[in-house]
Amino acid sequence: MTAVDGLLHPRAVAVVGASERSAMAGRLTRYLSGFDGPVYPVNPNHRRVHGLPCYPSLLELPGPVDLVLVLVPAARVLSAVEDAGRAGASFAVVLSSGFAEVGAEGRALQEQLVEVAGRYGMRVVGPNCQGLLYRPTGLAATFTAAADGVRQPDSGIAYVGQSGALGGSFLGKARDRGIGLTAWISVGNQADLTTTDAAELLVADPGVRVLACYLEELPDGARWQRLTEQTAAAGKQLVVLRSGRSAAGERAVASHTGALVRAGTAFDLLTRESGAIQVDDLDELLDTAVALTGESRPRGHRIGVITSSGGAGGLAADQAEAAGLSLPELDRAAQDVLAPLIPAFGSTANPVDVTAQVIDDAGQFGAVCEAVAESGEVDAVLVVLTTIGGAAAVEVAEAILRAAERRSTAPFAVAWLYSHEEIAEAGSMLRRNAIPVLDSTTAALRLIARLVPQESRRAEPAAPRGLSRFLDRPSLTEADGARLLDALQIARPRGRIVDPADVETVAREIGEHVVLKVQSPDLAHKSDVGGVLVGVRAEQAGRAAQDMLDAVTAGAPQARIDGVLVQEVLPPGVELLVGVQGGKHGYPPVVTVGMGGTTTELYSDVASALGPLDSGQAVALLRRLRGWPLLDGFRGRPRCDVAAAAAAIASLSQAAAELGSALTEVEINPLVVHATGAVAADLLVTTEPRP
Amino acid sequence: MTAVDGLLHPRAVAVVGASERSAMAGRLTRYLSGFDGPVYPVNPNHRRVHGLPCYPSLLELPGPVDLVLVLVPAARVLSAVEDAGRAGASFAVVLSSGFAEVGAEGRALQEQLVEVAGRYGMRVVGPNCQGLLYRPTGLAATFTAAADGVRQPDSGIAYVGQSGALGGSFLGKARDRGIGLTAWISVGNQADLTTTDAAELLVADPGVRVLACYLEELPDGARWQRLTEQTAAAGKQLVVLRSGRSAAGERAVASHTGALVRAGTAFDLLTRESGAIQVDDLDELLDTAVALTGESRPRGHRIGVITSSGGAGGLAADQAEAAGLSLPELDRAAQDVLAPLIPAFGSTANPVDVTAQVIDDAGQFGAVCEAVAESGEVDAVLVVLTTIGGAAAVEVAEAILRAAERRSTAPFAVAWLYSHEEIAEAGSMLRRNAIPVLDSTTAALRLIARLVPQESRRAEPAAPRGLSRFLDRPSLTEADGARLLDALQIARPRGRIVDPADVETVAREIGEHVVLKVQSPDLAHKSDVGGVLVGVRAEQAGRAAQDMLDAVTAGAPQARIDGVLVQEVLPPGVELLVGVQGGKHGYPPVVTVGMGGTTTELYSDVASALGPLDSGQAVALLRRLRGWPLLDGFRGRPRCDVAAAAAAIASLSQAAAELGSALTEVEINPLVVHATGAVAADLLVTTEPRP
Repeated sequence: MTAVDGLLHPRAVAVVGASERSAMAGRLTRYLSGFDGPVYPVNPNHRRVHGLPCYPSLLELPGPVDLVLVLVPAARVLSAVEDAGRAGASFAVVLSSGFAEVGAEGRALQEQLVEVAGRYGMRVVGPNCQGLLYRPTGLAATFTAAADGVRQPDSGIAYVGQSGALGGSFLGKARDRGIGLTAWISVGNQADLTTTDAAELLVADPGVRVLACYLEELPDGARWQRLTEQTAAAGKQLVVLRSGRSAAGERAVASHTGALVRAGTAFDLLTRESGAIQVDDLDELLDTAVALTGESRPRGHRIGVITSSGGAGGLAADQAEAAGLSLPELDRAAQDVLAPLIPAFGSTANPVDVTAQVIDDAGQFGAVCEAVAESGEVDAVLVVLTTIGGAAAVEVAEAILRAAERRSTAPFAVAWLYSHEEIAEAGSMLRRNAIPVLDSTTAALRLIARLVPQESRRAEPAAPRGLSRFLDRPSLTEADGARLLDALQIARPRGRIVDPADVETVAREIGEHVVLKVQSPDLAHKSDVGGVLVGVRAEQAGRAAQDMLDAVTAGAPQARIDGVLVQEVLPPGVELLVGVQGGKHGYPPVVTVGMGGTTTELYSDVASALGPLDSGQAVALLRRLRGWPLLDGFRGRPRCDVAAAAAAIASLSQAAAELGSALTEVEINPLVVHATGAVAADLLVTTEPRP
Repeated sequence: MTAVDGLLHPRAVAVVGASERSAMAGRLTRYLSGFDGPVYPVNPNHRRVHGLPCYPSLLELPGPVDLVLVLVPAARVLSAVEDAGRAGASFAVVLSSGFAEVGAEGRALQEQLVEVAGRYGMRVVGPNCQGLLYRPTGLAATFTAAADGVRQPDSGIAYVGQSGALGGSFLGKARDRGIGLTAWISVGNQADLTTTDAAELLVADPGVRVLACYLEELPDGARWQRLTEQTAAAGKQLVVLRSGRSAAGERAVASHTGALVRAGTAFDLLTRESGAIQVDDLDELLDTAVALTGESRPRGHRIGVITSSGGAGGLAADQAEAAGLSLPELDRAAQDVLAPLIPAFGSTANPVDVTAQVIDDAGQFGAVCEAVAESGEVDAVLVVLTTIGGAAAVEVAEAILRAAERRSTAPFAVAWLYSHEEIAEAGSMLRRNAIPVLDSTTAALRLIARLVPQESRRAEPAAPRGLSRFLDRPSLTEADGARLLDALQIARPRGRIVDPADVETVAREIGEHVVLKVQSPDLAHKSDVGGVLVGVRAEQAGRAAQDMLDAVTAGAPQARIDGVLVQEVLPPGVELLVGVQGGKHGYPPVVTVGMGGTTTELYSDVASALGPLDSGQAVALLRRLRGWPLLDGFRGRPRCDVAAAAAAIASLSQAAAELGSALTEVEINPLVVHATGAVAADLLVTTEPRP
């Protein structure tokens, strides 16, 4: 028997703590009556529970048991789990609370629990969870009141998450929409089985087509990637809602780039790369899942809006841009098809206004839907409806369904602005056929935009360049940095480290003006002690260097001085920030580019991608900056050497891939991009402190 | 009898076109049965309609009639309106369609309609409208099916808008929320009575506390201002949804500023200034109206979140920042009050997690709500609930209501994430007491943010400075511009217009480098013909000027040459764009500032306010720019002379106020702000073409 079988297809289920006295336990036993195998209540105080014979102990059951549900006070959970192991169960679902969520003592108890279960090779769901629902075997092993109520047809949608409360909200909202879930698992404290584990079980299930996943913690990157790969390989879909995203703890503050990139960025990028969709709230989680039960997704951002109300269509048009969608005017051919179907006072442009007259004729309305979807001019169709309810609503829904059945076409979504009651039946019909129905145009537009697949690829790691030698010390000297840039084939300002006595001679070789930087292994922030001078005239460089050294040694008498770096003053160019955060917790490195100088901070104009990148991917990343036109010859300025900038970004990203988790961050700030070439004016490397 | 009386309190209502045969006409007569006065069906083909005696003509009614509803084909509307006038009605509501919305012929018919009504001193609502509802007199003069269904208690909320379809959606959504509207008017084609007219009638009505207004066209500014003033004077609230906002037609393209400021900006600013609230969709219109039926609004952006689900609270915390809200940690005093009410494994910080245990005890939960609201640490309280339904939900709602009754405290909103059915009763109870209940945390947070009053004030117009003399010509010469800047006391670059022969002498007086600009009344774009030279060395200025003049006269032989402007090269500073669009259509001028150079375009960093502004208000406007830190000494740079910049902005705004609608736009681009002073490097004035 596989692990899944014991959880979702157990031969029998036992409930330790079964009772009719408490509402929770009562619901649990009552819901279990739908299970298509034996259910064994266990409670030494009762002879029967909800009509079933009740057993004094798990060790006295009349047959084998695979799944044991535990709903006794925390203090008695351990012995129940021990008994479950001895009875040969493969899964214990611990619904009881009073574990890690209540503090240190509970955490210790929770650890014991896992230890005991492990001894019997048994897996634990919970504790402090709300159990599970699994439609194919009729298993409802939960006490959440949200499992009550009308059973809606099976949708192929499954939910998994830590929170049983939000899981219950999800169930309740699904019921409102006429959607029955195929499976539902609340993993609670995740003492043993994590959300990702449960997600893998569900993705492997033949009845599950779309998995809606609610996460409160960042999963391990490698595990998460494996889940997304399994999902894709099975031709299934994953939608993710993650909380804790804006928490202060997500903001790393180690560096410039760190302050701009959240800890969750690698997760977000990995999720997007896999084709999974992230959402911001529970309604989006559910409505997106409904849309993904269908087979087609919009291939681009062009939508056609069909409405019977000019006002409602106008609202949708207003909001489309903010949602990242466009309403192209339909071409002549498409409008010619529409013209005979729509009264003269309607509109065959986009939004297509069919008028109230046409909405009453389902055949004609359906023909309009079909014509817009098949025009080739749009990637999705949004139907915006107002006061159409009851039987008329069902007719309209049927017309949309007939139009949507033609598989070649753009997918449909509906914004239906009316009383829920009036459109409940029509809405359920549509949703069961993968057409999401939302109660606002804003929400419908955001949904469509979210469904458009986003291109995102990484490059293969390049051959190692022996870079780990640069991480042998806590911080790199200027000379080390120069050698690293040379190894990465990234240009740096011309310059040499020389004795103070030679500064003037070297300065005259380098140019009219130079930059002087004191070199010392003891000064991490040399500009703070006056150790950097910019724009010094070459003929005064010797004197300036001496003054600088005097000031530094006055301020930091212990600092050893290795010499003075004499460097060219770079001509002005477009300044970029390029940072790569090393891969951590199983995630790939994250490459971040930004417009440099004050712009980065004031306008947060940055873009991130998973690394490593090749040059083409680096260009694509730069194009995502709002400041991209500055690189591309904005308003008659010379074009910058984007290829050189991209090569530097790609090389830096490959370095991070090679260095792996030993690297915390490497940052060039600024990378000065000229009409020819791109020069790394400053390099910062941060490594993990040695353990 | 006043105009309102005839529409909302008619002595009797007649229906021309009454019939049981059509669904529309049938609904109309059926709904009218609730009216608390006589209803006269009029139709020569029937003797009785829905049990009422039916009359062959408006001229044969048994008593006086104030309100006539017309629902006959367009061709017969004119005679019906004529009859209504003759019968002494004060209002005709024309529900029939087939007028301006169908083209030129219909438009002509519509004009006749208004002309005929005017002859009898009768006002027309419509045509092509869906009529009205008015709760105090039981009047339901509409055929929209959305008027069907359970009557919900009167809320004090009224709706007015052009679109009957969206109006019906609003009604349906209000019914779902347990909200009965006090009044509802669909004005359709607005042939006579406009949305603003109808809004004024409703604001004057004692039963209306909140008016929800849906606009498809920009109203006249003066009329709109009058409405907002009347609303404020009556202590009432106005919420506005406007469509057509992103239409291409809204983007003026006349100038730099014009491209950045939408046509609706003056409307938006005027609305905000009045304290009215603009929203983006129908749900927001309704939920905001519900919140405004209460007496308190959040005074700032700090919210306290109370939840029984850590996950749901976490989602709300994530989304708060995007909504512009903050979750301050509650201070020690507040947490001390909360501590005894919340189990150890809950949280007394913010979000306050009461745990599932406390939510079952309404008294204790209510005490938590009260403590958070009265802590003085938050401006609003958001309660986030999950799977609490039925009777338990009602108890929770009652607890929140008791806490909210303490008037001194922050207002409440609820995000209730569950099946609508389960929370229908509890939700209705809360909404009827001005506590909005939304089904997502995102929507609830956006609502709270919208309720925070926004400071916005204009200055009094200053004494006229005789500026109209500058508008006497189609475009200003450089010299005119200089005189205008001098009149406005705005600094400009030092410079003089001289004969070509004197250029070098004057240049040497002005500085090491100069700018040369050819002066001609015939050259609007002198840089296009090589008529501008920047950074010319003073000793070469004479020769350069001659070469420039040769090039110009070669390219534009007819151009008269008045001389050459020799101007100082401005030292670098922070560049701003300052534009003022003249007041049009009854709106005040709009003052726009932006970070200059490429930033304005790439990052759309602009801020607008209604003019005129005083210096303090101009500073406040500058502070709204994301680039403000650049003026304020960003990262150790010198602070700019913000006072000088503000004085220039204020002066320019006063100029626009003085010039009124004759001015299209005046723009300084850039205004170069230095550590001392701010200099207008370029001035552009656009005036209305002479009629």
